[in-house]
Amino acid sequence: MADQFYTMKEAMLYSQRIAQLSKALWKAVEKDWQTWIKPYDLNINEHHILWISYHLQGATISDIAKFGVMHVSTAFNFSKKLEERGLLSFSKRDTDKRNTYVDVTKKGKILLEEMYENYHVTQHAVLEGSLPIKELYGKFPDFMDVTAVIRNIYGDDFMDIFERSLKNIEDTFSSKSE
Amino acid sequence: MADQFYTMKEAMLYSQRIAQLSKALWKAVEKDWQTWIKPYDLNINEHHILWISYHLQGATISDIAKFGVMHVSTAFNFSKKLEERGLLSFSKRDTDKRNTYVDVTKKGKILLEEMYENYHVTQHAVLEGSLPIKELYGKFPDFMDVTAVIRNIYGDDFMDIFERSLKNIEDTFSSKSE
Repeated sequence: MADQFYTMKEAMLYSQRIAQLSKALWKAVEKDWQTWIKPYDLNINEHHILWISYHLQGATISDIAKFGVMHVSTAFNFSKKLEERGLLSFSKRDTDKRNTYVDVTKKGKILLEEMYENYHVTQHAVLEGSLPIKELYGKFPDFMDVTAVIRNIYGDDFMDIFERSLKNIEDTFSSKSE
Repeated sequence: MADQFYTMKEAMLYSQRIAQLSKALWKAVEKDWQTWIKPYDLNINEHHILWISYHLQGATISDIAKFGVMHVSTAFNFSKKLEERGLLSFSKRDTDKRNTYVDVTKKGKILLEEMYENYHVTQHAVLEGSLPIKELYGKFPDFMDVTAVIRNIYGDDFMDIFERSLKNIEDTFSSKSE
């Protein structure tokens, strides 16, 4: 064990720490998310799919599954429900007959933008719990270590889509409210 | 908006960042966890309850619910199942007739220790994804910002139990394998 890069003990402690922290964080995020989207008759998967399709502007079902960290069948089934509600449209491309492409409809865009506008109507425990850090450091935490771990697990593609979608929100807000 | 402590845009970007990161992290943790405990015919809730009861040494159902970030009814129902399997025992205390106390039985302890021993038999994507950070900084990431946010959301009690359980694992390992 002496010549190992890490000890069993270190690995176990680290593993238990990250398991507890990530569960607690995700449960808080999930609760805030559910409270926010409740008035719009969407579940988290549906909203996440709508969100990804909006920011990717022409995502395939497998893009949605990958970026939404959900099974392909979950991505497909909930996308289908959103299509039935007229919030998404499905299409094939001449250059790529195998994949189904998903786009947010005008109705879907209006719904998403309405949701963004009403974001601050509901309570966000995670946001509030982050304010003391913002006060102390002058900015919200950037979770560099979590981001690095996720990049190593999910790959550069995942992080590229992630950064692209955040850039997209930034641009949408710049052109609108500021 | 100028005199606000944070802008809508900042809050939204931060919120979307943490939502995506925490979902991706939790899904990876969940997968590792499930793979690890699969041979023992336990689900994550059951293992988590066993884990908490082991480290708290005399937890109430509400302690388990709080620290396990689950509903009281979930904590109760799965604890009951573990009791039926002889892994947990329930008791009342003379000084506190209202609460049910949960203890890990000898059989439960043996199972948990066996699971710890076989921890490295299965793959842990989160652990592997953290190794480049360990290599770079000489230690596993400590997620200070996530920890601070969670402390603000769940309170000092939550973090005390959290640290106590990690200390407990540390002591168990010290007295055994090192």
